[in-house]
Amino acid sequence: MTPKLFGFWRSLATCRVRVALALKGIKAEEVSINLMQGQQHGAEYRAVNPQSLVPALVIDNGPPLFQSMAILEYLEETHPQPPLLPPDPRGRARVRGLAQIVAADSHPLIVPRIRTYLEKELHVDEAGRTRWAQHWILEALKAIEAHLVGEPETGRFCHGDTPTLADICLATQVFGTQFFNCDTSGVPAVMRIFGECMKIEAFDRAQPLKQPGAPKELKH
Amino acid sequence: MTPKLFGFWRSLATCRVRVALALKGIKAEEVSINLMQGQQHGAEYRAVNPQSLVPALVIDNGPPLFQSMAILEYLEETHPQPPLLPPDPRGRARVRGLAQIVAADSHPLIVPRIRTYLEKELHVDEAGRTRWAQHWILEALKAIEAHLVGEPETGRFCHGDTPTLADICLATQVFGTQFFNCDTSGVPAVMRIFGECMKIEAFDRAQPLKQPGAPKELKH
Repeated sequence: MTPKLFGFWRSLATCRVRVALALKGIKAEEVSINLMQGQQHGAEYRAVNPQSLVPALVIDNGPPLFQSMAILEYLEETHPQPPLLPPDPRGRARVRGLAQIVAADSHPLIVPRIRTYLEKELHVDEAGRTRWAQHWILEALKAIEAHLVGEPETGRFCHGDTPTLADICLATQVFGTQFFNCDTSGVPAVMRIFGECMKIEAFDRAQPLKQPGAPKELKH
Repeated sequence: MTPKLFGFWRSLATCRVRVALALKGIKAEEVSINLMQGQQHGAEYRAVNPQSLVPALVIDNGPPLFQSMAILEYLEETHPQPPLLPPDPRGRARVRGLAQIVAADSHPLIVPRIRTYLEKELHVDEAGRTRWAQHWILEALKAIEAHLVGEPETGRFCHGDTPTLADICLATQVFGTQFFNCDTSGVPAVMRIFGECMKIEAFDRAQPLKQPGAPKELKH
């Protein structure tokens, strides 16, 4: 059975899984769950993922996998080539740590449910919500920048010369800077590595604006 | 050299690492970084972790490890006994997914830097900030509850009958409900498993209120 990725064109967490599937040469059918229309809250999708979040991945005839980073680890364990984690535990810890700076400390702060809460419950206007998103996106990228600049493991990519989970998270986070019109001039090492990622077809074709349903360009 | 855990009595991410070290029988010296006094922003601690967050772990004569979930995976790889992840990739994905519901989708929303931003930048009063914390803590626990109730892998603990990374995240999240006075009556499976965790000395002794520097009881 062809793997099925439940996602949305704009979802950066879905994008992570899309890149990893492409890097590993796994073909998946994508099912769009329209987050803007609230489709994630419907009974049909809650049966797939009770948390009402994308992505979810149905693969290897099992129940749906959930949480993007858990899915990436599963893909790494079951489809080890090409590796997206280094072979040594300390290198793996560095890559996972860089990835978590995005996946835990930043991206969850800017997703639709948070922006909706800011708007509806806390009455934060659109300019305030945009500043919120810009702030937390850049906080994470600045933390990653400090690691990249200060540590000898940094190479063409975040950790050596091949892409890892850290680069997947870095690249999707930079897509987020485009959504929220962030000034990325303060994170040159991040942007250099983003450029390297975008030379790879798996990253380029996975980007939000190249997905079905995406607008031709982003409005700021 | 004795491993050194940089943390804070109240930090739930530090607590995760403290539990894992104890479960694996690794003795570590704990260095308190007072988050309430802003010690994490000082030059001395930034040299340990440029992201100015706790925890960080110095172990095995290497540079500091950062990000709690990356540290837990490192400990699992280098000190595999007792295992905190199941042996099968699908089971590991479930455990990591449950853990990430807390570590990515909830806990980062309630940490001091977010509460400070809500207060200083968005002028949200204390009642509003408490409602924010309660809301996001419970959203995660409700999602975990749905998995626990609906899936056959649930046992005495989140996944089978021994504690895993999922239980570590669940337990620390329940400590968070105590900080913010959350009503946990809607998540009985979560609370049952929390009770199982607290029968284990590694969990009990790692809890925030039993750390040096903690107040005798929480003020609500």
